[in-house]
Amino acid sequence: MSVVKLEECRQHIRAQLDNVVDFWLKHSLDAVHGGFFTCIGRDGKVYDELKYVWLQGRQVWMYCRLYRTMDRFRRPEILAAAKAGGAFLRKFARVSSSSCQWKCAFCLTRDGKAIKVQRTIFSECFYILAMDELSRVTGDKDMQIEAEQMMEQLIYWVQVDPSGLGRPQLPGEAPTNSMAIPMMLLCLVQQLTEGREQEVVQKYRELGSWCVQQILHHIQRAGTAILENVSVDGAELPGCLGRLQNPGHALEAGWFLLQYSAERADEELQRTAIDKFVELPHQCGWDKEHGGLFYFLDVDGHCPTQLEWSMKLWWPHCEALIAFLMAYSQTKKPELLERFFQVYEYTFSHFPDAESGEWFGYLTQEGKVALDFKGGPFKGFFHVPRCLYMCERILDDLLDKKD
Amino acid sequence: MSVVKLEECRQHIRAQLDNVVDFWLKHSLDAVHGGFFTCIGRDGKVYDELKYVWLQGRQVWMYCRLYRTMDRFRRPEILAAAKAGGAFLRKFARVSSSSCQWKCAFCLTRDGKAIKVQRTIFSECFYILAMDELSRVTGDKDMQIEAEQMMEQLIYWVQVDPSGLGRPQLPGEAPTNSMAIPMMLLCLVQQLTEGREQEVVQKYRELGSWCVQQILHHIQRAGTAILENVSVDGAELPGCLGRLQNPGHALEAGWFLLQYSAERADEELQRTAIDKFVELPHQCGWDKEHGGLFYFLDVDGHCPTQLEWSMKLWWPHCEALIAFLMAYSQTKKPELLERFFQVYEYTFSHFPDAESGEWFGYLTQEGKVALDFKGGPFKGFFHVPRCLYMCERILDDLLDKKD
Repeated sequence: MSVVKLEECRQHIRAQLDNVVDFWLKHSLDAVHGGFFTCIGRDGKVYDELKYVWLQGRQVWMYCRLYRTMDRFRRPEILAAAKAGGAFLRKFARVSSSSCQWKCAFCLTRDGKAIKVQRTIFSECFYILAMDELSRVTGDKDMQIEAEQMMEQLIYWVQVDPSGLGRPQLPGEAPTNSMAIPMMLLCLVQQLTEGREQEVVQKYRELGSWCVQQILHHIQRAGTAILENVSVDGAELPGCLGRLQNPGHALEAGWFLLQYSAERADEELQRTAIDKFVELPHQCGWDKEHGGLFYFLDVDGHCPTQLEWSMKLWWPHCEALIAFLMAYSQTKKPELLERFFQVYEYTFSHFPDAESGEWFGYLTQEGKVALDFKGGPFKGFFHVPRCLYMCERILDDLLDKKD
Repeated sequence: MSVVKLEECRQHIRAQLDNVVDFWLKHSLDAVHGGFFTCIGRDGKVYDELKYVWLQGRQVWMYCRLYRTMDRFRRPEILAAAKAGGAFLRKFARVSSSSCQWKCAFCLTRDGKAIKVQRTIFSECFYILAMDELSRVTGDKDMQIEAEQMMEQLIYWVQVDPSGLGRPQLPGEAPTNSMAIPMMLLCLVQQLTEGREQEVVQKYRELGSWCVQQILHHIQRAGTAILENVSVDGAELPGCLGRLQNPGHALEAGWFLLQYSAERADEELQRTAIDKFVELPHQCGWDKEHGGLFYFLDVDGHCPTQLEWSMKLWWPHCEALIAFLMAYSQTKKPELLERFFQVYEYTFSHFPDAESGEWFGYLTQEGKVALDFKGGPFKGFFHVPRCLYMCERILDDLLDKKD
């Protein structure tokens, strides 16, 4: 029975992935200046030509990953798109006026001039993700070296001295461990080491373990909550900042930890990942009235100050799908599969646009489409295809073993 | 008939103003460290102790203005609150680590340590507003001088060289005229010159006229739209940035221009202000389906990328009430009074909290309360009391002349 349902699910996810890949190949390539348009309206029309470096890097990564690991996407136009995106990034993403050669812009004009630089590490993270994966499909060793060099800079900013990022240190600012930082670094460690020689694996081993410890510090309130920001020694921070919960983010951390624990056959970490980073954020974050995952919550039940706190965004649902399916595939506990189907029902009945393809990204609390574009400054070719790709692979694995 | 309705309206607005003043006097004063709490929950409880400099400055200004110009608020506790807020600002708002002595922080800890500095001029604007108005009630000449000195710095940042604000100039960034800048400077010119000697009035005359010209550049598309961001020579900018509309902001600019035109008996400017900055943004910005003013719109009808674009915020409604009532009082055109009542109906049936006092700030498109706090990082003791205060004064004027 559940095999039939899983098979149905796999077919649906496969078709969705094909649809989403087609949508972006059709609408997002900039044949004139290279790189990708990511501000794409409901019907596929480009409504803004700005190029967001996060999204450029993610799109290159996703194309390469599909090309490299799924036969039906080993197509020349996908490789060409990835290469064109990589060339655009290499030519334009780094801020030449910066005192540091590795700082990347956040946003560029269509022809690659920097418009905005964030005083954080995320543009650089997605640049690294792109370069490493691209080096794997092209065999270009230079890209791999570039990725590892930028990674050194990131580690220095995070672990030694952040002043190069340009944010002045202020006397009232408590040093904070934001979950995004160790999560992104762990994601990069997994990217940079996957299938690489022992030397590379060894090089990042300690960092990986540091990231996991930093993520685990976000388990707070005697194990009853994941908080998004904690102090550097793992204590709760005061005020809204300290009480903030981001269930989608916790769920994403959950499957990063599950991957990590599987590589090491670390059962204790697997249990922690499932209990604290998958089950708990779903429990706290699920809207009992309207369904779907809230974007932000306050652990004490105050109203969050983020205007969009109650909206239902596509990406937390993507992360939840991966997290529950991976947790189920590792443990075979039926309650995890039930949760997967609960999220699956909500997700596929609310986000995909049957009319013009791809998914809507932003719904009201009640589940109505609030912003109808398919791509924007923070929604590109990443969370939806990564989710569909990961779920299809896990389902292949589950179903082929069952066969 | 309309006199009866206006009188009813005045009574209601008076009672609301009393209620709002009481709410903040009761809940926002920090007796230990000085200054004001502004993160205040539905029931009046402080849910975060951070002190936002914009809101500290605005609250000082509002208390002083009430104390100075309305007899029933000439109360010692209001003066004491204003003075305590002013002392906190003078002691802590300026960033001592900055290379410029006038740069203010955006956010402070409860005991006044800087947490965040914005690379803009708005903290400084509200600091000036506070100091000038406080100097008027206390007679403290030093504060007036301080306000004027900081104003010189602001003018330098805006008109000569913004590099002291700390934002690096980037090659892709088109120099932009954001409506907020000339609006705030015009507001400050009106504040600093009101009732002052000719020397001061003269000093800011040219700046005032420059601000008006800069604001008028936002009339675009052959007079059919107010756009929030234009190029420095008054042309439309490309993309979402260029197409952005913020109806509440345009309405606020509208009544700033109406005040300015009245002082100079400039009928042409008055007509422009009413047609383009009051009637037009109300027409474009009013939600025909659910009522209320949208927060953001795209002039070409694309979906804005701001997640909160369709929400109904308290402050655009406050600005619309002032704008329509002022426009009516200057022209006596009945259609302007009709619009005032339309906005009035929506506002008073949706925003005030009959249970715990004060107003909710953030509603969904459909008019449901989305965030239930009374104060937050951007909502303090300012837009609501300023609106009630301005409307009460205009109504006094209208009704007393009618009597």
